Amino acid sequence: MSVHSSGAAVTLVLGGARSGKSAFAEALAREHERRVYVATAERVDEEMSRRIAAHRARRGEGWSTVEAPLALAEAIRRESAPRSCLLVDCLTVWLGNLVHHERCVDEARDALLASLRAAAGPVVLVANEVGLGIVPDNAMAREFRDRAGRLNQAVAAVASRVYFVAAGLPLALKEP
Amino acid sequence: MSVHSSGAAVTLVLGGARSGKSAFAEALAREHERRVYVATAERVDEEMSRRIAAHRARRGEGWSTVEAPLALAEAIRRESAPRSCLLVDCLTVWLGNLVHHERCVDEARDALLASLRAAAGPVVLVANEVGLGIVPDNAMAREFRDRAGRLNQAVAAVASRVYFVAAGLPLALKEP
Amino acid sequence: MSVHSSGAAVTLVLGGARSGKSAFAEALAREHERRVYVATAERVDEEMSRRIAAHRARRGEGWSTVEAPLALAEAIRRESAPRSCLLVDCLTVWLGNLVHHERCVDEARDALLASLRAAAGPVVLVANEVGLGIVPDNAMAREFRDRAGRLNQAVAAVASRVYFVAAGLPLALKEP
Repeated sequence: MSVHSSGAAVTLVLGGARSGKSAFAEALAREHERRVYVATAERVDEEMSRRIAAHRARRGEGWSTVEAPLALAEAIRRESAPRSCLLVDCLTVWLGNLVHHERCVDEARDALLASLRAAAGPVVLVANEVGLGIVPDNAMAREFRDRAGRLNQAVAAVASRVYFVAAGLPLALKEP
Repeated sequence: MSVHSSGAAVTLVLGGARSGKSAFAEALAREHERRVYVATAERVDEEMSRRIAAHRARRGEGWSTVEAPLALAEAIRRESAPRSCLLVDCLTVWLGNLVHHERCVDEARDALLASLRAAAGPVVLVANEVGLGIVPDNAMAREFRDRAGRLNQAVAAVASRVYFVAAGLPLALKEP
Repeated sequence: MSVHSSGAAVTLVLGGARSGKSAFAEALAREHERRVYVATAERVDEEMSRRIAAHRARRGEGWSTVEAPLALAEAIRRESAPRSCLLVDCLTVWLGNLVHHERCVDEARDALLASLRAAAGPVVLVANEVGLGIVPDNAMAREFRDRAGRLNQAVAAVASRVYFVAAGLPLALKEP
């Protein structure tokens, strides 16, 4: 499989909270023989630990799991292989981790985009759409919202498939 | 009309605040001979009373109205009849009432889903999509958002038609 | 060109923050020989000045710019001409200015709609969808959200094309 053809295998699944975006992304990943779940969440609190456990229980057998709260591009480079689908869940949590740990967001994003362009197998990425509510009061929330929106646009540009999920139902924004 | 065929008659209309979702749902209901408006709002404050009055004025003649701030499944069972369309407006307000009155949300949701599956005539339900803004600061708002998203997914799964409305314009997410 | 035919030339581009809606609207405007950028933002703070400068840099040559933080209908009447495309960016900021300066929103909206119906050439308008997050805590934010939603509906009704943009990708809500 050439590097050039792999560009066709990046899929972005966008949606709101509890929109069913992760379940839809998992269904896409299940079409592939092997699956690697790339978790970006840090196990920092009870609420997040419960969510991770619930996601894990729903996925069931046939998955290996790697954790990449910050080094996402590295995880994609390392794990990507033909006939193996990576499921990155989710980009917005990863972005929050970068900001929390004061990493350079632009640099991390460019590394991510490069890893997607070079991926040897299919990659499905989940992301939150967070820009459709009222303008947040505080400047930090506004800045995060802007960064999340720009990240989604950048990943959508390298993806061959982009879906928007609402109430568990996908709407195609981009298809080959 | 058999119980099994009635499953095809559930429609979910999703949208944001002032998206025109209620007006679109009413237009769908108007295709039917008789209409029952199932209001879930409680008349607890001035703002809500004004909204109820505005909705009522817009609907005009040819509707009967029942109020079901909590006992929604019971209202659907009682009012559902062939050639009569129920318009439930809206699920998200009903969910808020359940939480406010400390009812068991899971139990109420299961009863609602059962009433929809058993409905003798068409039911159109309106719901808010609330998960597309920035993550709320407080845990209660986050939990409500999660519950609303899961409720929308569950109702969408039993519906044969699901629409997302923005700026008064419907986008089909699911159609028979 | 008759007044009646020009109604076909109004386009509304809806989207969230950092959704790529302005870039998409600019691409639509570029199909026309001449372009007038109708900026509604007031240069009141650093953050907004930076955004205006970034938008200006991205648009590049071939645009003239007028500022219309309040007198939007007047600007459309004055600048509208055959073969010249007006790009109004954005309606939601204009609405915020009206509220901030305590102008009558209904009157301004009716004047805007009249100016769109009478436009001599194409007009592309950008607007934020702000109603898809959790219900805001304070009444002013709720009222603004409602007004923004109603304004979007009213403009969508006179438009011949309406798009919803997410992650830089347009979804047609209305097309001729």
